[in-house]
Amino acid sequence: MSARAGIVVTGTEVLAGRVRDRNGPWLADRLSELGIDLAHITICGDRPADVEAQLRFLTSEGVDLVVTSGGLGPTADDLTAEVVGRFQGRDSIVDEELERRIAAVVEPLLKRWRGLDQAAIEASARKQATIPAGADVLGPAGTAPGLVVPPADGRAGPTVLVLPGPPRELHATWHEAVASETFGAAVAGRSRYEHRMLRLIGIPESEIAETLRVGEERIDGLDTLEVTTCLRRGELEVAVRYEPPAEPAWEGLLALVRERHAPQLFSDDGTSVDEQVATLLRESGATVAVAESCTGGELAGRLSGPAGASAYFAGGIVAYADEAKTSLLDVDPALIARHGAVSPQVASAMAAGAVRRFGASAAVAVTGVAGPGGGTEEKPVGYVCFAARLADERELARDLVIPGERAEVRDRSTTLGMHVLRRLLLGAPAPT
Amino acid sequence: MSARAGIVVTGTEVLAGRVRDRNGPWLADRLSELGIDLAHITICGDRPADVEAQLRFLTSEGVDLVVTSGGLGPTADDLTAEVVGRFQGRDSIVDEELERRIAAVVEPLLKRWRGLDQAAIEASARKQATIPAGADVLGPAGTAPGLVVPPADGRAGPTVLVLPGPPRELHATWHEAVASETFGAAVAGRSRYEHRMLRLIGIPESEIAETLRVGEERIDGLDTLEVTTCLRRGELEVAVRYEPPAEPAWEGLLALVRERHAPQLFSDDGTSVDEQVATLLRESGATVAVAESCTGGELAGRLSGPAGASAYFAGGIVAYADEAKTSLLDVDPALIARHGAVSPQVASAMAAGAVRRFGASAAVAVTGVAGPGGGTEEKPVGYVCFAARLADERELARDLVIPGERAEVRDRSTTLGMHVLRRLLLGAPAPT
Repeated sequence: MSARAGIVVTGTEVLAGRVRDRNGPWLADRLSELGIDLAHITICGDRPADVEAQLRFLTSEGVDLVVTSGGLGPTADDLTAEVVGRFQGRDSIVDEELERRIAAVVEPLLKRWRGLDQAAIEASARKQATIPAGADVLGPAGTAPGLVVPPADGRAGPTVLVLPGPPRELHATWHEAVASETFGAAVAGRSRYEHRMLRLIGIPESEIAETLRVGEERIDGLDTLEVTTCLRRGELEVAVRYEPPAEPAWEGLLALVRERHAPQLFSDDGTSVDEQVATLLRESGATVAVAESCTGGELAGRLSGPAGASAYFAGGIVAYADEAKTSLLDVDPALIARHGAVSPQVASAMAAGAVRRFGASAAVAVTGVAGPGGGTEEKPVGYVCFAARLADERELARDLVIPGERAEVRDRSTTLGMHVLRRLLLGAPAPT
Repeated sequence: MSARAGIVVTGTEVLAGRVRDRNGPWLADRLSELGIDLAHITICGDRPADVEAQLRFLTSEGVDLVVTSGGLGPTADDLTAEVVGRFQGRDSIVDEELERRIAAVVEPLLKRWRGLDQAAIEASARKQATIPAGADVLGPAGTAPGLVVPPADGRAGPTVLVLPGPPRELHATWHEAVASETFGAAVAGRSRYEHRMLRLIGIPESEIAETLRVGEERIDGLDTLEVTTCLRRGELEVAVRYEPPAEPAWEGLLALVRERHAPQLFSDDGTSVDEQVATLLRESGATVAVAESCTGGELAGRLSGPAGASAYFAGGIVAYADEAKTSLLDVDPALIARHGAVSPQVASAMAAGAVRRFGASAAVAVTGVAGPGGGTEEKPVGYVCFAARLADERELARDLVIPGERAEVRDRSTTLGMHVLRRLLLGAPAPT
C-alpha cells in the first residue's frame, strides 16, 4: 500500500483558464517517481472557502500528503499560507528572520525597475513572511517561501506542503521539501513503482485497445499493470506503471506490442522523437537545417529547443511567401507553377535548398495548407508534404491530409517532420 | 446569486501530466460567459472510486452543474458514462440507434488505416453506445456522444454534463448541450457578469498590488470588482469581473491604472500583443520578416500563427550559426568579430538583412544567450538583444537580461520581440 497524495492548485487565473497550470503535471511526475499514488488534482480560485473545501475533501479521501501550488504572492488575493495554517489548527505569525531574507532577495531585483514604491515592497515582504506557527520554512527560492505544515499536535490529517506558484521557485522548494524529515514522515512506508512508456506513430487508439484485449488472454498478470493510452501531438502514448513483481507481465506486453505494431513503435525506453533525433544528430556529428512553410518556424523551434542544439542545428528558413522559396531556397519558380507550392516536388526542392544554403549534412522540409483558407478539392486544408534529405541526396518523402484546425495541423506537422527526419537518419522507410 | 458549477477532468494521462488538459480552461471560459460561477476544477485518473468521490465532493459543495471531460473512449479505462449514471441513480443501457450512428461515423475513418480488426471496431461502438437510461444524447461529433444526465426522479443534486475528451468533439457537444432544456433548467436564474482584461509589460506584480491598495482609498465600490493579477509569458495580466452595477468602479480602476502605468499598459480591451501586431500589419498593408537566433524559429512561429497571417508574414531566417547570419542575412563578419554575435549591433544588422532579403516593409530581429551554456560575465545567460526595423531604416532597439531557464528565456524573448515590433509599428519608444 503506497502513500496517497492530492494536489491543490490555487489561483483564479488558473481556474479561469487565463494561465496554464504547469505545476500540477510537474508535481504529478515527482510524486510518481517517489511511488506516491496521486489520487486527485483540484484547482480553485482565490476564495478561502473553496481552498478550505478542497483541503477537507482530500482529507476525507484519506490522503497522506497534500501539495498546494500558488497563492503565496504579495497581493491581497494570495491566501494559501493563511488558509492552510487555519486548516491545520495553527496560528499565523510573522517570521522576522524570513522577512529579512525576503527583503535581501528583493534588493537586487529592484535594480531592474524604476521608481518603485518602497512601502509596497515592505508590505509585500511582511505579507510573504507571515506563516503558520511551527511550519518548516523552505527557501525562499524567489520571494515566496515554501512551507511544510503538519497538523497541529493532537490533530489527524495529511501534512500539507505549501509551494510557490512560479515553476522555478516551486521546483527548488520541492526538492528541499522532499529532503525534510516532516515530508518523509508523512509518506513513510510507500512502495516503489516501475514506469514504462511506449510511443507509436501512425496508429489509432482502437488498435492498441484490441492488442490489450488480446494480451488479457495471452499474458499472465496483465491486470497487475496499470496501462493508460493517450493520443498526443499525433503520437499514441502507452504508459505502464507496475510494482516490481509484475515485471514479467510488462515484458509480455512489450513483446506483444512489438509483434503486432513493429512499424509504428518508435520508442520503448521513454525517449521522445525529439530526444531521439537530437541523439542521432549528436552521435553522427551531422548538422541539420529546416525549410518550412505552413509550420511557420515551429519545426525549427522544436529542433533548436533542446539544450546543446547549437552543436547540430544550423538554422532554418521560413519560406512563407513563394518568392522566399525561390530567392532563399532556390526553388525553381517553374516547379511551383507546375505542381503548386504545396507539392512533394516543392518539398523536395526546399529540402535540397536548405542543405545547400546552410551547408548542412541533412535538412527537413515541410509545405502544406494549414488553413483555415487556401484549401482546394485536390489539396484540402490539412494537406501537408514532407521531405527529408541528406547532403548525399538520399531522401525520404511523405504527404498526407492531417485532420484538425490550423493550430493542430501546424503542431502535428512538426511532429511528423521530426519523424520523417528520424527515419531518414536511421535509414528507415517513411512513417505510415 | 449566480449558478455554481464544477468541472471534473478524468484521465490518468492528464492526472499524470503526460497530456495537457485544454478542456478545463476552455469550459471555464464558456461557463464564465454564461455568468455561471465556476468553483472547482478537479482532475482524477480512471479509477471509478476517485471519479465518484469528486462527484460527491462537488455535490456536497452545492454546485448546480457538473461538467465532466473525458473517459468516453473505446478503451476499458473509459468509465465516465457508467460512473455518472450510477451516481445519478440511473441504469446503463445500450442505445442501439446511437450504436448505428457511431458505426456510421467510424466507417469513413477506417479508410485512413490499414488492416483494422473488425471485432475491435464493433466492440468500441457498442461500448460507446452504452449510456445511462434517460440521459439526453448529444452528437456524437466524433465517435463518443455527449450526455446530459440529471439526477434520477426524486433525487437531489447537480445535473451532470458528460462531454468527450477530444477538444473538437467537446466544443461541438458543449454548444449542443447549452441549447438543451435540461441544461437551462439546471442553471436557471443566473446573473450576468462583465469581464475586462488589462495587460501590461515591464512592470512587477507588486506595483499593481500597490495601485490596488491606492484604489481602495480613492474608488467607491472597488471591492465589488473581482480583480486577479498574474504574470504570463513576461506580461502582467489584470483580469476584472463584476456585475453590471459596478461599472463605475471599473471605470475608476481603469483611469487609475492609466494614470499610474501609462507607459506599461498596452491593452485594456482584451487584445493580446499578437492580435495587436496582426491588426497593425493588416491595416497598414505592411509585410514583416523575422531574423532570429536564440529563439530558434519561435518568433516566426508566433507571427505566423494567426489565421490569415500569409497576408502580412513574409517569412523568417533562423540564423543559429554565425555563418548563417553572414550568408543569409548579410551580417558583416567583422561586426560579429568586433561586437560578438549577441550584440545590439548584430541584432540591428540582422533586422536590416531580413528587410532586404524578404523585401519586407518591416522586420524584427533577436539574438541572445538562451543557455544553459554560452554565458559570459559580460553577456550572461538570458542576455538578449532586439531590433525592429522599417524599410525606411527607422529602427527600435532593446537589450536586457531575461531571468529563467532556456525555455523561459526563449519564450519571453518571443514576447518582447512582439512588443518591440508593436512599438515600432506604432511609432512609440521601446518597451522598458
